[in-house]
Amino acid sequence: MSQALDIAVVGATGSVGEALVQILEELQFPVATLHLLASMESAGSSVMFAGKKVRVREVDSFDFAQVKLAFFAAGAAVSRTFASKAREAGCSVIDLSGGLEEALSIVPEANPEALDGLKLPVVVSSPSSGAIALAVALAPLRGVLDIERIQVMACLAVSSQGREAVNELARQTAELLNARPLEPRFFDRQVAFNLLAQVGATDEQGHGTLERRLVSESRVLLGLPELKISVSCVQVPVFFGDSFSVSVQSRTPVDVQAVKLALDGAASVERVENDDYPTPVGDAVGQDVVYVGRVRQGIDADHQLDLWLTTDNVRKGAALNAVQLAQLLIKKMA
Amino acid sequence: MSQALDIAVVGATGSVGEALVQILEELQFPVATLHLLASMESAGSSVMFAGKKVRVREVDSFDFAQVKLAFFAAGAAVSRTFASKAREAGCSVIDLSGGLEEALSIVPEANPEALDGLKLPVVVSSPSSGAIALAVALAPLRGVLDIERIQVMACLAVSSQGREAVNELARQTAELLNARPLEPRFFDRQVAFNLLAQVGATDEQGHGTLERRLVSESRVLLGLPELKISVSCVQVPVFFGDSFSVSVQSRTPVDVQAVKLALDGAASVERVENDDYPTPVGDAVGQDVVYVGRVRQGIDADHQLDLWLTTDNVRKGAALNAVQLAQLLIKKMA
Ligand SMILES: NC(=O)c1ccc[n+]([C@@H]2O[C@H](COP(=O)([O-])OP(=O)(O)OC[C@H]3O[C@@H](n4cnc5c(N)ncnc54)[C@H](OP(=O)(O)O)[C@@H]3O)[C@@H](O)[C@H]2O)c1
Ligand SMILES: NC(=O)c1ccc[n+]([C@@H]2O[C@H](COP(=O)([O-])OP(=O)(O)OC[C@H]3O[C@@H](n4cnc5c(N)ncnc54)[C@H](OP(=O)(O)O)[C@@H]3O)[C@@H](O)[C@H]2O)c1
Repeated sequence: MSQALDIAVVGATGSVGEALVQILEELQFPVATLHLLASMESAGSSVMFAGKKVRVREVDSFDFAQVKLAFFAAGAAVSRTFASKAREAGCSVIDLSGGLEEALSIVPEANPEALDGLKLPVVVSSPSSGAIALAVALAPLRGVLDIERIQVMACLAVSSQGREAVNELARQTAELLNARPLEPRFFDRQVAFNLLAQVGATDEQGHGTLERRLVSESRVLLGLPELKISVSCVQVPVFFGDSFSVSVQSRTPVDVQAVKLALDGAASVERVENDDYPTPVGDAVGQDVVYVGRVRQGIDADHQLDLWLTTDNVRKGAALNAVQLAQLLIKKMA
Repeated sequence: MSQALDIAVVGATGSVGEALVQILEELQFPVATLHLLASMESAGSSVMFAGKKVRVREVDSFDFAQVKLAFFAAGAAVSRTFASKAREAGCSVIDLSGGLEEALSIVPEANPEALDGLKLPVVVSSPSSGAIALAVALAPLRGVLDIERIQVMACLAVSSQGREAVNELARQTAELLNARPLEPRFFDRQVAFNLLAQVGATDEQGHGTLERRLVSESRVLLGLPELKISVSCVQVPVFFGDSFSVSVQSRTPVDVQAVKLALDGAASVERVENDDYPTPVGDAVGQDVVYVGRVRQGIDADHQLDLWLTTDNVRKGAALNAVQLAQLLIKKMA
């Protein structure tokens, strides 16, 4: 058992922050003192941890020299402002915001060795939920496929945009069912019973920030820097659970049986046979694995593997990966 | 103006049947007598057409010798039972069910010439909504792309499964919002706020009937019998409007500007610039076009074109295409 650590969670009142606190408790992570941080707005509120109320404080006035490890789950701007200060104060940072481009992305099931070369204190990135799902499902397939190109359609739950987006889907749905006029707030249009084919802003070439991020993170996590990968993100009217329709082009014909065996032997993967299929609600949400289903060759494309992935974006796709990463880090600290 | 025709609509009380009747009226299709047919269940009910109530009758006792043209929108089984009888009685059939595999698929914007060789009475197929959307959007691109492979993720509205599925999404949503226990009926599980990664049964290889159908129809419509195309269908919690995330591999680099120009000049296409994107609700539903947005090269893939399509599955994706097809047919009858 490792020595207990003083830890901070930045963004403790958010969806991911709440899941972080819960998972630290569930996994009996060796916490000495837990510091919960957020903005001025929720400073003063409190959150339960290990049977005790912990008061939430403002991140602005927090001294990161008090902790050895901090999770950052409060958006890219907060990470950009405080992560390097924390590190300078001797605190390792696990960033969940995607805002620190220089931070190395790590998914313990895919590239745990990436930690080997790093010196404490480190700043590492727990990547986007899509990159985590792809890494968990595809890393174990590198032995049975010669991956040339990946095509991903990411169907993102509203919770991937935080608490406010969750409230907005609920509010819009209730308004529509009660035939009241719809007033979009968080989203710029109706998201209930609709699909929004773009998530966030796009660049000159028409690609979204998150789409680009998924591409670069996947290359790092899979250890395939030259990998050709294209991603399209769609906002779907689902509260929790991100899903991914994935096609992998292999340089050699796909042996579906070998793929299934590799998935069945993989950590954090739950494979569903083709007489059924996994869904975000009912399967993925609340679970600690990436569900994989509809494993098949492309139609008339024996060099193509088609898959459907679904995972809890707040747990496995964020908080749990960060805590697993912290477990690797504390081994280095021991 | 063509001579008015006696016409039958089989499945007149369904989502597609209702849209057929409405579009025949909107487009002032030259109808002499309109016969509305359905099952025993709705026989006796009536539907408005051109300001008059038309009584719905049972298809089983209908004599197709009374009409020159019949639309079949009552499922594959009904088409299989009655379409060849109708034709033997001298009636041309436009089938919307996909149940008549030998019937040639036609989308007027893509392969109108397919009618040229046929002798009246004909049995032709108005293909699936996905095949129509792909044909309308991609046929005009054959001049600017050398299409090698297409990858499609089809996000299907519940209305693509008929009236009952629409009622089921509404009922499930209301139950969930009111925190009542969910009892799935039409679907075998929760479809509200969820994604179902499979639509209908799958074969030994794991492909769904509709996925296979989209592949074979697209090859015919685009006149590319050797086209490599893979399709994944997902049932989304959207009432109306099917959407498609499409990636096209070209043998030559993609000229996005030329693609945009070709789309802007194409019939039945409405292109949305990349500072915006089209949605099923708000854009497609109730409209007579296929919306195309997010036109871009793949990320680091200059031979790949990525697109987002959305269209009203009941109108453009079914009833309107069938009526446009009927307009071509009556020219042959004249
Ligand atoms: N949701 C996901 O699926 C997911 C997955 C992977 C990564 N992430 C990342 O995780 C982070 C949190 O996401 P979320 O979904 O939990 O969002 P959220 O529910 O909106 O919560 C945001 C959290 O950040 C805090 N915060 C916002 N602005 C702040 C500021 N200026 N100073 C200090 N704290 C501030 C909020 O505190 P207050 O209560 O004081 O407002 C709250 O605790 C984001 O960076 C997101 O990109 C999310
Ligand atoms: N919905 C779409 O987006 C879409 C798109 C393309 C093609 N299609 C095809 O169009 C057809 C109709 O779809 P829909 O969405 O309109 O379905 P729907 O709303 O469920 O309507 C079904 C229609 O078929 C009739 N019907 C069912 N069983 C019958 C029987 N044994 N004999 C006579 N009539 C019968 C029903 O009549 P009752 O009122 O008597 O039950 C009703 O009029 C299907 O073949 C479907 O595959 C649908």
